[in-house]
Amino acid sequence: MGTADQTYNPANYSAANHCHVAVPPPQPFVKSLTNTLKETLFPDDPFRQFKNQPPGKRFLLGFRYLFPILEWGPKYTLGLFKADLIAGITIASLAIPQGISYAKLANLPPILGLYSSFVPPLIYTVMGSSRDLAVGTIAVGSLLTGSMLSNVVDPTDEPNLYLHLAFTATFIAGVFEATLGIFRLGFIVDFLSHATIVGFMGGAATVVCLQQLKGIFGLDHFTHATDIISVMRSVFTQVHKWRWESAVLGCSFLFYLQLTRYFSKKRAKLFWISAMAPLTSVILGSLLVYFTHAEKHGIQVIGELKKGINPASLMDINFDSKYLAGTIKTGIVTGIIALAEGIAVGRSFAMLKNYNIDGNKEMIAFGMMNIAGSCTSCYLTAGPFSRSAVNVNAGCRTAVSNIVMSFAVMITLLFLTPLFFYTPLVVLSSIIIAAMLGLIDYEAAIHLWHVDKFDFVVCMSAYIGVVFANIEIGLILAIGLSIMRVLLFVARPRTLVLGNIPNTKVYRNVDQYQNASSVPGILILEIDSPIYFANSNYLRERISRWIDDEEDKLKSSGETALQYVVLDMSAVGNIDTSGISMLEEVKKIVDRRNLQLALVNPGAEVMKKLNKSKFLETIGQEWIFLTVGEAVGACNYMLHSCNSKIVNNEYEKYSDYA
Amino acid sequence: MGTADQTYNPANYSAANHCHVAVPPPQPFVKSLTNTLKETLFPDDPFRQFKNQPPGKRFLLGFRYLFPILEWGPKYTLGLFKADLIAGITIASLAIPQGISYAKLANLPPILGLYSSFVPPLIYTVMGSSRDLAVGTIAVGSLLTGSMLSNVVDPTDEPNLYLHLAFTATFIAGVFEATLGIFRLGFIVDFLSHATIVGFMGGAATVVCLQQLKGIFGLDHFTHATDIISVMRSVFTQVHKWRWESAVLGCSFLFYLQLTRYFSKKRAKLFWISAMAPLTSVILGSLLVYFTHAEKHGIQVIGELKKGINPASLMDINFDSKYLAGTIKTGIVTGIIALAEGIAVGRSFAMLKNYNIDGNKEMIAFGMMNIAGSCTSCYLTAGPFSRSAVNVNAGCRTAVSNIVMSFAVMITLLFLTPLFFYTPLVVLSSIIIAAMLGLIDYEAAIHLWHVDKFDFVVCMSAYIGVVFANIEIGLILAIGLSIMRVLLFVARPRTLVLGNIPNTKVYRNVDQYQNASSVPGILILEIDSPIYFANSNYLRERISRWIDDEEDKLKSSGETALQYVVLDMSAVGNIDTSGISMLEEVKKIVDRRNLQLALVNPGAEVMKKLNKSKFLETIGQEWIFLTVGEAVGACNYMLHSCNSKIVNNEYEKYSDYA
Repeated sequence: MGTADQTYNPANYSAANHCHVAVPPPQPFVKSLTNTLKETLFPDDPFRQFKNQPPGKRFLLGFRYLFPILEWGPKYTLGLFKADLIAGITIASLAIPQGISYAKLANLPPILGLYSSFVPPLIYTVMGSSRDLAVGTIAVGSLLTGSMLSNVVDPTDEPNLYLHLAFTATFIAGVFEATLGIFRLGFIVDFLSHATIVGFMGGAATVVCLQQLKGIFGLDHFTHATDIISVMRSVFTQVHKWRWESAVLGCSFLFYLQLTRYFSKKRAKLFWISAMAPLTSVILGSLLVYFTHAEKHGIQVIGELKKGINPASLMDINFDSKYLAGTIKTGIVTGIIALAEGIAVGRSFAMLKNYNIDGNKEMIAFGMMNIAGSCTSCYLTAGPFSRSAVNVNAGCRTAVSNIVMSFAVMITLLFLTPLFFYTPLVVLSSIIIAAMLGLIDYEAAIHLWHVDKFDFVVCMSAYIGVVFANIEIGLILAIGLSIMRVLLFVARPRTLVLGNIPNTKVYRNVDQYQNASSVPGILILEIDSPIYFANSNYLRERISRWIDDEEDKLKSSGETALQYVVLDMSAVGNIDTSGISMLEEVKKIVDRRNLQLALVNPGAEVMKKLNKSKFLETIGQEWIFLTVGEAVGACNYMLHSCNSKIVNNEYEKYSDYA
Repeated sequence: MGTADQTYNPANYSAANHCHVAVPPPQPFVKSLTNTLKETLFPDDPFRQFKNQPPGKRFLLGFRYLFPILEWGPKYTLGLFKADLIAGITIASLAIPQGISYAKLANLPPILGLYSSFVPPLIYTVMGSSRDLAVGTIAVGSLLTGSMLSNVVDPTDEPNLYLHLAFTATFIAGVFEATLGIFRLGFIVDFLSHATIVGFMGGAATVVCLQQLKGIFGLDHFTHATDIISVMRSVFTQVHKWRWESAVLGCSFLFYLQLTRYFSKKRAKLFWISAMAPLTSVILGSLLVYFTHAEKHGIQVIGELKKGINPASLMDINFDSKYLAGTIKTGIVTGIIALAEGIAVGRSFAMLKNYNIDGNKEMIAFGMMNIAGSCTSCYLTAGPFSRSAVNVNAGCRTAVSNIVMSFAVMITLLFLTPLFFYTPLVVLSSIIIAAMLGLIDYEAAIHLWHVDKFDFVVCMSAYIGVVFANIEIGLILAIGLSIMRVLLFVARPRTLVLGNIPNTKVYRNVDQYQNASSVPGILILEIDSPIYFANSNYLRERISRWIDDEEDKLKSSGETALQYVVLDMSAVGNIDTSGISMLEEVKKIVDRRNLQLALVNPGAEVMKKLNKSKFLETIGQEWIFLTVGEAVGACNYMLHSCNSKIVNNEYEKYSDYA
């Protein structure tokens, strides 16, 4: 279309009024690629502090970046140490029974739980940036390791091989975590949404509780499956093997643990009652068994734990191709779950205490911790929520509380392991159940239901998937649904009809603003998302339906016929080649109906592409406006000053297409 | 924060000026769910015509909707028939040699290609809504069927079983296509972007050409793999078996076919030369062999074709669990590829001739066509581009040209099959190569490079994946990359700094508009995408970095200190619970720095969720504005009229958090 006919040229109108939508200056490809990569991978600009520094200083800063202890270590004081000492001892008292319990969840020897609370915390103290995280094994990670590795090798038939594969999976998890951190791919963890985590954690906690029925009822044989149906069948087909002594003991300790939690919740100052409860349970249970010789009457006990600190296990790491696929899968899945929990815990306490955590740096720390752990007889560790919360409540100030805990565990390993000989397994089950009940966050699920139904569906599908099928299916379901939601948002963007808000030049969605009124003869649509291949077909159909509807409505009411279609592109962040074809087709549709198309406020990226693809020439630069108000102004100006001319002119144009 | 201190309350400012951002009226859950589902699955509102109609009429309309022939059939005239007759005969002359050639691509008996051009076109005429589509087998679909089914069963060892599995795969493809259509899931096809299709089609065409080297060089043994390296190895390790007679014949016919295309391209009226060229090649080739007895000198011929129309094959469909997984996979992949090609072809011709095609209805037609085909000895059919283009060029007016073609093929099947005995295979190879060269759309690839680099990468990865690995890998690569791009867009939305455009109340991105100037003391940010779990962490960090940067900049330049952070939410189409937590955290960050947060123009969906999650109460309704201009106005009003008061008040608030 030419601009020859001066009378209908909106340039006449707008030149006198406002500035035009600019095509951004062309950027070299390499520069725009660098910018995009930088925004994608370094949104927090970690190199900022290195700018304008001499090389020596840069090296020092880089070293400090990797080892935050160099930053806070020199400023460490005795006052801080006092606080950390108390917190460290408190978490050690929790770490010892929890470590032993969780190792059993992973089908590993109990002593591994203690090993895993010795080396990894030391590594984290040096490399981690959280001041509140208490390092140790995590329930869900242990359960996942157990259920996934059991599919590779049977832990009862080949306990040694199984142990070695657990080290291998831990090694792989560590390498994977560190790699994610080094390549700044931390955002992968972001794809586990809050809703997914609530549902998944709740489901995993339920599954872990169900597994404990084995310990509570003192059963010898139990299903390897984790779903509720298999577990229930396993429990109720063995009713004749239930041990009432075990059940009574288990229930009493569970009651005790829940009671202490209740008191702690009522008074924050009494948190230590709940924090110490697991250790006191272990001590009480052990004493009970020791004095009553209950181990001879059907109460299973831990038995002998080897004295001494972690043996080296570097040589045990097994890359046998027969098991490699299974261990890699276990490593990656457990690694990412450990990251998700650890980083979420670190972030929430950092938010509470007002300091920053660099997710990618944390990943490197977690990765190194697990790599080192896999060489020193530890299995997967992260920052468990329960232990970290106790750490914070006990008043920790820096990561030194982890060193204290580590030291306490070392002493236990060196001297105190014989004391656990008589510890009944059922007490460990009670400790696990008590910890797990706290992870089922039904209040969060209710909140999701109130605020966002779709998030609730995601949450529940994760929960149901984990409980009724298995952990991986639950996870895949929830992540799949979350991603589907993002894709659906892009595939089905909303197109909103805008109307004028009285006495302003502002145009807003008529559904949201009841007082917004439409402009006669002009249809104003807002597109609510980037225009991509996934939505270009939809948008074309939807826009032509809007035009149909509007024409029908105007025809039946006898108002001014439709003359202009204005597309507000403010919210269109980007466009691809399919999207541009869509716009070309919309232009044809609009032309064919004898209407005029105008665009409003396309962003820099969109303008660039419209220009490159010559669509700017097709539509004419003068039909692109800065605001909806200007577009409507120009349209009205033409509607009133030269209405008949436009129609004629449009008919002429139409004859080209017919 | 209360509104007790009237002096700093922006309500004072804005109440006098403008209307407020409305919280949309609550909608019952079921209604909003219905609306969402309707927009997602019925964007074209197919039930529109049924509204306000009596039940009898509704039934008739529904019947017509399913069988469009009822709509255009009664209006059919002799004039239309004349045009359709010519077009039908023209496409039949193309269909017969192409059918035979493509069947060989699928490792199926050549006669199946003819069968497949008899029944499916009849079904499509009755159910299809395109007037221009010519139905038949498609090259890429045939190749995919061949390569995927060969992995299930060897076509030379067990030809009968292979044939039956091909019918089964066709049946499954048909059921899958019809299901997608019935459940209105047509948008799944949209996830094959234009760039993906260009790269994939080009790659598939290259692979098909490479496969023809077998025919051109008259080789007996050939690799089953489709990648370029295997094929080249297969060709060049058998140099001693090359038949020069075959190669000469093949190259001459290829030259002839390309020459006719060249002439047809030069003059649109000569299109029939190119359309008839395959048939004349077949006739010439057959005559040549017949008179020279070349079949005894190394030229392979088709040999005997069974006379008679399609035998029934319903009983041959084989759901043996041994092969079921393979056939289901083949059926689904080929079905979706067939849909993508058929619908794209139908749409582009409909766009050209200005009528509408309902993608979901087309899917049902394609599905029924393949289901019927699988019961009558046909394999996968769709709307091949080459045949449809010839149909349009030959002046077809309705789908009756398909009936004519079908009739011509029937006569061939009944009487003329013996004529193909001497047709040399090498001629078929030439025909395929000539058709495939037209599918390698390098111009489109160059266009992609110019307009959108990422689309070019997607296109090339599809091409390279198909050519160097295999068809499925190419497809998965391209779709994966396309989806990753959508996810990355959502995971890394842009945050833009807005500035005031001089002499207006308009605020725009300062990078795009060089003349936009920032407002002292106020940082205005626009968020460019919905706020979802995938980007909430990123956005929090990015926003706090913007604030840091701005404060640093102002500090070093000694200008007014930063006092307000305004977030323009116009482009935020939706928010989930993770996004709301993000906003809460940003509010805390902003409070902690002693600044004030204001939101601008949140959409209906966002307002609803902000309200439900009580964030509206946290931020205060008076800090939500309709336009950036109003927000800046209110901020400026307070900056100038009661600057000291605000600071004091903010300090008081801060003390609550400290």
